[in-house]
Amino acid sequence: MAEDGVLAYPIIAVNDADTKHMFDNRYGTGQSTLDGVVRATNVLLAGMRVVIAGYGWCGRGIASRARGMGSHVIVCEVDPTRALEAVMDGYEVMPMGRAAASGDLFITVTGDKNVIRAEHFTKMKDGAIVCNSGHFNVEIDIPALEKLARSRKMSRPFVEEFTLRNGRRVYLLADGRLVNLASAEGHPASVMDMSFADQALCAEYMVKNARKLKKKVYDVPKSIDQQVAKIKLESMGVKIDKLTPEQVKYLASWNEGT
Amino acid sequence: MAEDGVLAYPIIAVNDADTKHMFDNRYGTGQSTLDGVVRATNVLLAGMRVVIAGYGWCGRGIASRARGMGSHVIVCEVDPTRALEAVMDGYEVMPMGRAAASGDLFITVTGDKNVIRAEHFTKMKDGAIVCNSGHFNVEIDIPALEKLARSRKMSRPFVEEFTLRNGRRVYLLADGRLVNLASAEGHPASVMDMSFADQALCAEYMVKNARKLKKKVYDVPKSIDQQVAKIKLESMGVKIDKLTPEQVKYLASWNEGT
Amino acid sequence: MAEDGVLAYPIIAVNDADTKHMFDNRYGTGQSTLDGVVRATNVLLAGMRVVIAGYGWCGRGIASRARGMGSHVIVCEVDPTRALEAVMDGYEVMPMGRAAASGDLFITVTGDKNVIRAEHFTKMKDGAIVCNSGHFNVEIDIPALEKLARSRKMSRPFVEEFTLRNGRRVYLLADGRLVNLASAEGHPASVMDMSFADQALCAEYMVKNARKLKKKVYDVPKSIDQQVAKIKLESMGVKIDKLTPEQVKYLASWNEGT
Amino acid sequence: MAEDGVLAYPIIAVNDADTKHMFDNRYGTGQSTLDGVVRATNVLLAGMRVVIAGYGWCGRGIASRARGMGSHVIVCEVDPTRALEAVMDGYEVMPMGRAAASGDLFITVTGDKNVIRAEHFTKMKDGAIVCNSGHFNVEIDIPALEKLARSRKMSRPFVEEFTLRNGRRVYLLADGRLVNLASAEGHPASVMDMSFADQALCAEYMVKNARKLKKKVYDVPKSIDQQVAKIKLESMGVKIDKLTPEQVKYLASWNEGT
Repeated sequence: MAEDGVLAYPIIAVNDADTKHMFDNRYGTGQSTLDGVVRATNVLLAGMRVVIAGYGWCGRGIASRARGMGSHVIVCEVDPTRALEAVMDGYEVMPMGRAAASGDLFITVTGDKNVIRAEHFTKMKDGAIVCNSGHFNVEIDIPALEKLARSRKMSRPFVEEFTLRNGRRVYLLADGRLVNLASAEGHPASVMDMSFADQALCAEYMVKNARKLKKKVYDVPKSIDQQVAKIKLESMGVKIDKLTPEQVKYLASWNEGT
Repeated sequence: MAEDGVLAYPIIAVNDADTKHMFDNRYGTGQSTLDGVVRATNVLLAGMRVVIAGYGWCGRGIASRARGMGSHVIVCEVDPTRALEAVMDGYEVMPMGRAAASGDLFITVTGDKNVIRAEHFTKMKDGAIVCNSGHFNVEIDIPALEKLARSRKMSRPFVEEFTLRNGRRVYLLADGRLVNLASAEGHPASVMDMSFADQALCAEYMVKNARKLKKKVYDVPKSIDQQVAKIKLESMGVKIDKLTPEQVKYLASWNEGT
Repeated sequence: MAEDGVLAYPIIAVNDADTKHMFDNRYGTGQSTLDGVVRATNVLLAGMRVVIAGYGWCGRGIASRARGMGSHVIVCEVDPTRALEAVMDGYEVMPMGRAAASGDLFITVTGDKNVIRAEHFTKMKDGAIVCNSGHFNVEIDIPALEKLARSRKMSRPFVEEFTLRNGRRVYLLADGRLVNLASAEGHPASVMDMSFADQALCAEYMVKNARKLKKKVYDVPKSIDQQVAKIKLESMGVKIDKLTPEQVKYLASWNEGT
Repeated sequence: MAEDGVLAYPIIAVNDADTKHMFDNRYGTGQSTLDGVVRATNVLLAGMRVVIAGYGWCGRGIASRARGMGSHVIVCEVDPTRALEAVMDGYEVMPMGRAAASGDLFITVTGDKNVIRAEHFTKMKDGAIVCNSGHFNVEIDIPALEKLARSRKMSRPFVEEFTLRNGRRVYLLADGRLVNLASAEGHPASVMDMSFADQALCAEYMVKNARKLKKKVYDVPKSIDQQVAKIKLESMGVKIDKLTPEQVKYLASWNEGT
């Protein structure tokens, strides 16, 4: 919108604050997505083949937590750098076209649409579970799933069973909406506190600096990020180091040392 | 009871089947205990200091899953071999007397009584959460907690807040009963299937061999364990290797090789 | 040998001491095997597909450490219970016949012979690395590899390159002998101390009880295991809990509690 | 230097390429630092208390690998956001002043000077090991260590033993120089390939665009990063997904979806 010149007022991209996306998106989504899946289905995550589409902050968080619960994690990505990071983190990386045939649980967190579609549903094993934790309910092509099905029914709250014409059953959680919000309680308060603090402090900042700001997208001021992290650490009782004056000076210079 | 000669009939110790304790106790309890805690409290496990009393199969399972969710795990044990195993697995090991002062969440899985008692409650931080996933509600000395409290109230279902006379609040989950059964759905079906298969096959075995068995405690026959594991792998679509005749022969001999 | 009645004197199976196989075999072999591979080849373990044949104590240790270094771990097993444990621990499990085609590094720790043989070598990718950390140099069928090769040369110390007739190169480390002993320093002193303590204390025990012992295989006395673990913890500065008299009594009884 | 106007020619900050710092600094340093420590000392990492100063890309890599080897990891940081990330990743975070008393192994990767200094050495346990993997040999205040020592000797190659006046011994590895370069082989070729590709392609880019570039610091062009990652994945035999035309369109628009 900024590029199209249609922004009506200044914006701070709060979602890009380090204390937001590195925490809420990663640790919050990581835990609450699995929480949503378990509450909806009561599956045992240990030994499951979990396919995660997207290796951004949300995907990294879910992958890490799924492995932590004993799942075998497979990552699907379109970005080569992210795909490579997933490989180096020890996950299997493959296209969805291949992952579809072997996954037990599929989770989309890409921010794009139709990530899982007809060509994938038809390859899935009987009993495959499909859900979304990324964006809107467009990540999974639900109309395609409906067309492939010869019958459907609710088997548990938030769990809809689609029996495909090939005889296999696919379970869609929470109508493809955010599974952590639908079948669990969303993110824990102890991570949302940081996101809300970012929003409140950025709103205050915009009011205070209203005259100087233009109709464009701004980064979160670094000082707000630092302040939020500092208060959070204090609330957890964690103490950290301080730079000595000598260290501050050393970091600022380029002509000391070798 | 066997030692006291008071067993009225033969017993197979089904809980000692490998396909029971290594799976149900470890992976089942590991997941469902954290599931119970999260459903009761909606805390973020990442960054929490989780104190686990007991490093048997249940404790190993919970420790592994808590670390997998990003917690800092502290293990309390009385057995030196188990304590050493916990150290080598990368956990902090310390007596409860010291852990009490720094833990955010305490989980007992020892099979013993009064593992957390008055001397520990009084050291806890404000907001500490205490629960049991091991045995009966005797692992936590609840009468002692009641005596130390100047007031108590339910703050969420399954979460009772005790305000101690030192002004700090301790939260007891599910009256100290098994937190995974109380506030979650217990173990997933996909791990209980093995435990139930062990029980059914052992019952069949006892009926078939009723005449031969004495009034004592028997181990689960190895063939039952193997059969359960084999069927479980098949149901998951996992294929494994078979020994070649040459390999069978080699394993059985002691005079081949060097 | 005991079954064949050919033991010439009593034996204590020191290798079965908890403080031996749970530590030396697992943590010792886990670290030193990867150490041996890295010193021989200087490969980056992150992102590698590591195939481990055998999920006993050594295999568990290597699998855990390889995952910890960022490898994607595949386990091959013949025992269904162990295979299932590997699955639940989050590893991929498949027969060697399938793993051979996708692995980057193969490690045998089975105690059996010809675990990797002609049928597997011919499926391997160009550049596959094969080594043994389990037993003697019979786990890998080296004569078969030699027959399949049209040329061979040492490419680094401990690294022999076999160019197969299919044009692909397979690298055999340390002539198939224990890779941790050959190209690294074997187990660290800080885990061998326990194994040697077990041996020394068991030797002392046998001398003291020489008259009572028969020509058969004995378990390590529990008290020796406990003593070794206790001293090891002390040397590491780790303190653990002690049972209260009330707890000792509770554990010993079967008619208290519900 | 750019700010001071003293740059003599244009610079591309190759170290900031995603395919450099996210891989070489993290996975390369992570593995090779521990490799250096193990080759120098042959310690068992499992069960060790490893203190890592700095939670940048190098620190994250070392922390992850040390935990993967069974160490208990403690992180020291001055930046609150990084410190919080370390907490949420499950590590203990505390000031060096406190960590000094309980660590078994200390690794500095901060890019600053005198991170470990007199006040820390005097608190260390007998047998503590100190090394640097971050920057120059200024991260550890070696002159201070020398002053505190009443004697010193080489106990193994790359391992110097300082006996302090308090009677405790501190072991300094590789004179405080980069331990992975000194006592191991540096980063594996399979991660340096990417860093060198970045450098080569950036050099080519600068030559081709020499006329347009000013005497300032440029980011690595995104296309170079993508190209390096893409080729690396191909060389590893990893295939990834491609966006469909529909998906490309969706990502570019802001007025589709809700």
